[in-house]
Amino acid sequence: MKQFVVIGCGRFGSSVAKTLYGLGFDVLAIDSNEDVIQGIADSVTHAVQADATEEAALKSLGMRNFDVAVITVGSNIQSSIMATLIVKELGVKYVVAKAQNEQHAKVLYKIGADRIVFPERDMGVRVAHNLVSSNILDYIELAPDYSIVEISALQEWEGNNLRELNMRAKYGINVMAIKHGTEINISPSATDIVKKGDVLVVIGHNDDIQKIEKKA
Amino acid sequence: MKQFVVIGCGRFGSSVAKTLYGLGFDVLAIDSNEDVIQGIADSVTHAVQADATEEAALKSLGMRNFDVAVITVGSNIQSSIMATLIVKELGVKYVVAKAQNEQHAKVLYKIGADRIVFPERDMGVRVAHNLVSSNILDYIELAPDYSIVEISALQEWEGNNLRELNMRAKYGINVMAIKHGTEINISPSATDIVKKGDVLVVIGHNDDIQKIEKKA
Ligand SMILES: Nc1ncnc2c1ncn2[C@@H]1O[C@H](COP(=O)(O)OP(=O)(O)OP(=O)(O)O)[C@@H](O)[C@H]1O
Ligand SMILES: Nc1ncnc2c1ncn2[C@@H]1O[C@H](COP(=O)(O)OP(=O)(O)OP(=O)(O)O)[C@@H](O)[C@H]1O
Ligand SMILES: [Ca+2]
Ligand SMILES: [Ca+2]
Ligand SMILES: [Ca+2]
Ligand SMILES: [Ca+2]
Repeated sequence: MKQFVVIGCGRFGSSVAKTLYGLGFDVLAIDSNEDVIQGIADSVTHAVQADATEEAALKSLGMRNFDVAVITVGSNIQSSIMATLIVKELGVKYVVAKAQNEQHAKVLYKIGADRIVFPERDMGVRVAHNLVSSNILDYIELAPDYSIVEISALQEWEGNNLRELNMRAKYGINVMAIKHGTEINISPSATDIVKKGDVLVVIGHNDDIQKIEKKA
Repeated sequence: MKQFVVIGCGRFGSSVAKTLYGLGFDVLAIDSNEDVIQGIADSVTHAVQADATEEAALKSLGMRNFDVAVITVGSNIQSSIMATLIVKELGVKYVVAKAQNEQHAKVLYKIGADRIVFPERDMGVRVAHNLVSSNILDYIELAPDYSIVEISALQEWEGNNLRELNMRAKYGINVMAIKHGTEINISPSATDIVKKGDVLVVIGHNDDIQKIEKKA
């Protein structure tokens, strides 16, 4: 079982820590703020108040026994760099660090971070796509031009089966799944009918998906 | 064409604003910090320095002409509440607001926000799921038990075609797309071969997907 340490438990870090713990993993949560530590103590394996820019503090917490460190000390770029350097030196195998911007990310990679995340930026992109069409519920950008999206069925689709809708020919889009309430059909066939309130999961070129978004 | 105003252009807000502008929409970006405004001016339609807790300032910027306001003034909960109240009163039709926590969200809904987002929390959940299996690149939770995931092809799959891999029978999973470098095949057929470095986009029950994650 992988051992995780999450350093910095703001909104992002605490969500990572709680989710990992919820998935059944051991999680040590570290934050310099005692109130933050008290707030998260019941949702992780251990929660300890410590300053992640102090090597001795991290060393005494047994960093080298951890498989993955997630460093989310955010607003203070210098602290994030220091903490990353220290956990790498102390032997944590895989270090994920949150960056403010590209330049910050570059430095983090240079000092050994294995993966950089930009939670606010990435979620901003997602929310913007969602807003443009309120019937796009979620999406994965597969490639710069291709996405998978969950789309609320348009009214004009209701009562038609997939052969009749013929999205492949009309829009160049493939329907991969149909959600009807809590049921989900992951192998839709030509005769499956789209009902009111259904959600379709489709894959296609962004331009083609946008054509549908614009009809919504 | 929908008109957007983004109030607060931190990491999340600026990403929302730039993405909307990139999608071809008109975006007014507002921030109280002049440096932030200068940084974003070239990436949106208009960028204006203003305090979103001042009704007169927002009114003079023509709030009532906007279809959607995205309020991301983050750390200061009181300002976020004030700004939400003001844009609602000034007649913006659809107001999306970023919340720090559930209690903040509740207040925002009460004063008329149409949608609340928790970017850090949501991305924390995503990153945690990603970390648990390093070959899961992205995912959509379709239903509590079903997901679509992007998964790096396992070594044992390389050189086999989809009929040989027979994931449908072996794991109950459907392959919806194969990414090979920047190319993407969104209608994979039984004779398509999985190559080294390919990414498969699969849909299935979480239990079945986890079986694959554990083999990775
Ligand atoms: N040197 C440090 N050692 C340990 N924890 C730290 C250190 N510096 C900051 N932190 C903690 O990291 C957490 C995140 O930092 P901060 O709030 O500055 O980032 P943020 O990017 O705004 O976070 P988020 O958006 O995820 O809420 C905070 O709880 C803070 O107390
Ligand atoms: N009253 C206000 N009027 C306009 N803009 C404001 C106001 N208060 C804060 N802002 C701006 O909102 C932006 C986001 O605020 P802040 O940095 O506190 O939130 P945050 O949640 O840490 O943001 P993020 O995580 O997205 O970077 C900042 O650029 C800030 O200047
Ligand atoms: Ca913060
Ligand atoms: Ca943040
Ligand atoms: Ca996704
Ligand atoms: Ca900030």
